[in-house]
Amino acid sequence: MTFKIIVAGKASHAYAQKGIEEYLKRLKRYGKFEIYYVKAGESIAVSKRLQKVAENSLIVALDERGEDFSSYEFAGLLQGWTDDPSVKSVSFLIGAADGHTEELRKKSTKVLRLSKMTMMHELALVVFLEQLYRGCTINKGEPYHR
Amino acid sequence: MTFKIIVAGKASHAYAQKGIEEYLKRLKRYGKFEIYYVKAGESIAVSKRLQKVAENSLIVALDERGEDFSSYEFAGLLQGWTDDPSVKSVSFLIGAADGHTEELRKKSTKVLRLSKMTMMHELALVVFLEQLYRGCTINKGEPYHR
Repeated sequence: MTFKIIVAGKASHAYAQKGIEEYLKRLKRYGKFEIYYVKAGESIAVSKRLQKVAENSLIVALDERGEDFSSYEFAGLLQGWTDDPSVKSVSFLIGAADGHTEELRKKSTKVLRLSKMTMMHELALVVFLEQLYRGCTINKGEPYHR
Repeated sequence: MTFKIIVAGKASHAYAQKGIEEYLKRLKRYGKFEIYYVKAGESIAVSKRLQKVAENSLIVALDERGEDFSSYEFAGLLQGWTDDPSVKSVSFLIGAADGHTEELRKKSTKVLRLSKMTMMHELALVVFLEQLYRGCTINKGEPYHR
């Protein structure tokens, strides 16, 4: 099982770059987590670029119009995909400021939102990676290492 | 008007420290934002310490049992407090992992939550400071500087 995190635009803030590194390093113990960047821009172009990288993968869109989820619910989703032999890879898509296109959202198995608030996308990426890490520790029954 | 952000436990991760610095620096242009740290611990002790620093201030608790809010709704709250001559200071309280005590939540003018997910408290602090900054730019009608 491969988890891909596909993001429009690289992080430009030092703090976000450091946060991304921190959680990608922690995630290595739990499986194959790969991060991909596509060029940022307006939502139609970005949604196309994201989908191209996500090809042949189950798609989960992160979008302000998505469902809220608790850390335990998210851990349950991760476990369900990991246990499903028909799922080879899951792609999490973090898009443009104006969100994903309707077409992309329709193709997604799940549309999730991190918060009702608008968050800068690189900060959203750190928050999401921390949730992946938290979900992995929940599923392994491990204590959360701060 | 003074905005106090009162947090249980200092940030230990370099990325969070950098994120906190980044947004505190940006906030300087918009008013008086002060950050205070109290000792972390279990919720009864922490809630007491937080309230002590927040004395004579309108209290807003950040807690997983709080209301969700959009960035625009939050900007509206900030503006409302700023315009109210009876409000001299607002204290935002970020507490222990197990949340604030019921007593503290009852004393709060508002109980807000950043997300349905559990977030490490120092990451929650970065997310919250970014919202304060975003709220200030919304209220000034300025573009958001990434």
